[in-house]
Amino acid sequence: MKIAFQGERGAFSELAAIEHFGPSAKLRAQPEFPDVFKAVASGECHYGVVPIENSLAGSIHQNYDLLLESNLFIAGEVLLRIGHFLISNRGVKKSQVKRVFSHPQALAQCKKYLNAFTGTEKIPFSNTALAVKKIREEGLKDAAAIASIQAAIDFKMDVLASNIEDNKWNTTRFLVVAKKSVKPSGNLPLKSSVVFSMKNIPGALFKCLGAFALRDVDLFKIESRPVHGKGFKYLFYLDFEGSPTSEVQRNALANLQEITQFYRFLGSYPQGKPVQPKYGKR
Amino acid sequence: MKIAFQGERGAFSELAAIEHFGPSAKLRAQPEFPDVFKAVASGECHYGVVPIENSLAGSIHQNYDLLLESNLFIAGEVLLRIGHFLISNRGVKKSQVKRVFSHPQALAQCKKYLNAFTGTEKIPFSNTALAVKKIREEGLKDAAAIASIQAAIDFKMDVLASNIEDNKWNTTRFLVVAKKSVKPSGNLPLKSSVVFSMKNIPGALFKCLGAFALRDVDLFKIESRPVHGKGFKYLFYLDFEGSPTSEVQRNALANLQEITQFYRFLGSYPQGKPVQPKYGKR
Repeated sequence: MKIAFQGERGAFSELAAIEHFGPSAKLRAQPEFPDVFKAVASGECHYGVVPIENSLAGSIHQNYDLLLESNLFIAGEVLLRIGHFLISNRGVKKSQVKRVFSHPQALAQCKKYLNAFTGTEKIPFSNTALAVKKIREEGLKDAAAIASIQAAIDFKMDVLASNIEDNKWNTTRFLVVAKKSVKPSGNLPLKSSVVFSMKNIPGALFKCLGAFALRDVDLFKIESRPVHGKGFKYLFYLDFEGSPTSEVQRNALANLQEITQFYRFLGSYPQGKPVQPKYGKR
Repeated sequence: MKIAFQGERGAFSELAAIEHFGPSAKLRAQPEFPDVFKAVASGECHYGVVPIENSLAGSIHQNYDLLLESNLFIAGEVLLRIGHFLISNRGVKKSQVKRVFSHPQALAQCKKYLNAFTGTEKIPFSNTALAVKKIREEGLKDAAAIASIQAAIDFKMDVLASNIEDNKWNTTRFLVVAKKSVKPSGNLPLKSSVVFSMKNIPGALFKCLGAFALRDVDLFKIESRPVHGKGFKYLFYLDFEGSPTSEVQRNALANLQEITQFYRFLGSYPQGKPVQPKYGKR
C-alpha cells in the first residue's frame, strides 16, 4: 500500500498517514499538495493524506480546491493533536536564535511564545519538517525551526523548547483521499461530504440546510469557497452525519439536488476521533 | 481625517482607502494588520481599511479574528478590481529574473504566469508594495516583485509585464473599520454584518438562517471561523441586506438572538460596487 503525503519525514501529514494506515504502509513524500492529488489520480499511490482544517487556524482552502479539481473522493479522516517544538542544530543556545523558520500556520500557532523572543525574525517556510532540514543542511547557528518532535528525532537535532503552541487544544483534521468512493463497512459512526453551488433563488442556502434539518440529519461543518472567475459566487462544502446507505440521507441528498446548480458527492467514511501522534526512533 | 492601512505606499489597501476617503485624507501606513486595528481603537486614526475577502483566494481570516478581538465596527466597504504587475529595478530583463517576491495571495493569483518561468523561485513577502521596496533597496538584479502599477510608479521601477493575474475577474473586498457604529444616511442600498455562535441545539444553523429567510431578507455571505481553544466549534460571520433601522431586519436579529449563544452586531454600511483603482503620479 503506497500513501502520498506533502512534506518531508516527520511532517504532521506523515504522522497522520502512519496513524491511519499503520507503520507498514509505504509513505511517499511529495513536494506540494497538488503532487499528492496527482500521485493518487495517476494510480502511482493508493491513497493520499492531506490536512484540511486546523482547530485554531481554520480551513486549508487550497486542499478544498484540489479535492474538487482532482475528482478524488474522501475515504477517511484523521484528527491529530498538534504539539510544536523549537528545534535547533546540536549545541545551539536559545539566546543565539535570531531567526525562526516554519510553516506560516505553525508560526501563527506559537505567536505568544515567539513574541517573547524580542527581535527574532519569523521566516515562513513551505513545511515544518523541511524547515528543520534546511537549518540542518545549512548548519545555521542563529536559527531554529518549529516542527513536530518527530522531525527533531528524524534529523537528530536539539529541542530548545517543548509544546510552545499558544493553545493546547490544537488539532488538525486530515483527509484520506482515494480514486474511488468506498462504501464504509463495520459499525463505526459515519460522516459524508458533498460540494455544491446553489440555484439563484431566494433563501437558497436556508433551503439546502433544510434538506438535512427537516430530516434531523446533523451537520458537522459548512465551508464556503469562491468559485474561481465568478466574482463573489460560492461553492459550499458540507459534512453531515451518516451515509447514503440509509434512506433518510438518500432523501436529504435528493432534496438538496432540487436546489443546487452544481453537485458532487465526495464520499462517506468513519468519523475520526482526536489522537496523539505516535513518535519514535525509526 | 487620519486613515490607517497595512503596508506601504502603493499597497492595494492604500488604493482602497483613497477610493473611499478621497485624495485629501491623511493615510497612515502600519506594519501589520493588528496595528491597523490598534491605531483605530486607540483613537490615533479615525478609520482603518483592511482587506477581508478576495474573489479568487477567499477570506482573509486574520482580519475576521481581529475585527472581533478589537471590538471595532464596520463603517463601509470598498470592492477594488485587482491588477498584478511584474516589477523590477530599472534595466533588468525578464530573462534575468530568478526570484519573484510578493504576498502569498498575489503569487497564488499569478500561478499560471509564474509557472511559465521555469526555475523561478517564488518568495512569500508580507505585502506587495513592500516586496517592490525590498528589491529596490537591495538593488536586486535577479529579482522581480508582483504588485500594483501604483507601486511601480511610486518607487520609479520598470514594469516587465502587465495584468499577469490568472483570472481577470479578480476583486478584493476591503472593510472600513471605526470605533463606533455609524447609522448610514442617504438612499444607498445597505448591508449589515453580525457575528454569532449557536446554542447546541439540533438544526441550529438552519434556524439562524431561517430568521432571515422567513422574512425574505437576502444573505450576501456566511463565513465560519473556529472558536480559538474550543476544538472544532465555530463562530459565524453573516452579511445581510438592509439595516436594523427597518423593522423587518430588527425582527430578524431579535429572532436570531433566540438561537445564539454569543452575538455581536458589527455595523451597517452602504453596499460597495467593484471599481478600478485610480493610479497616478503623486
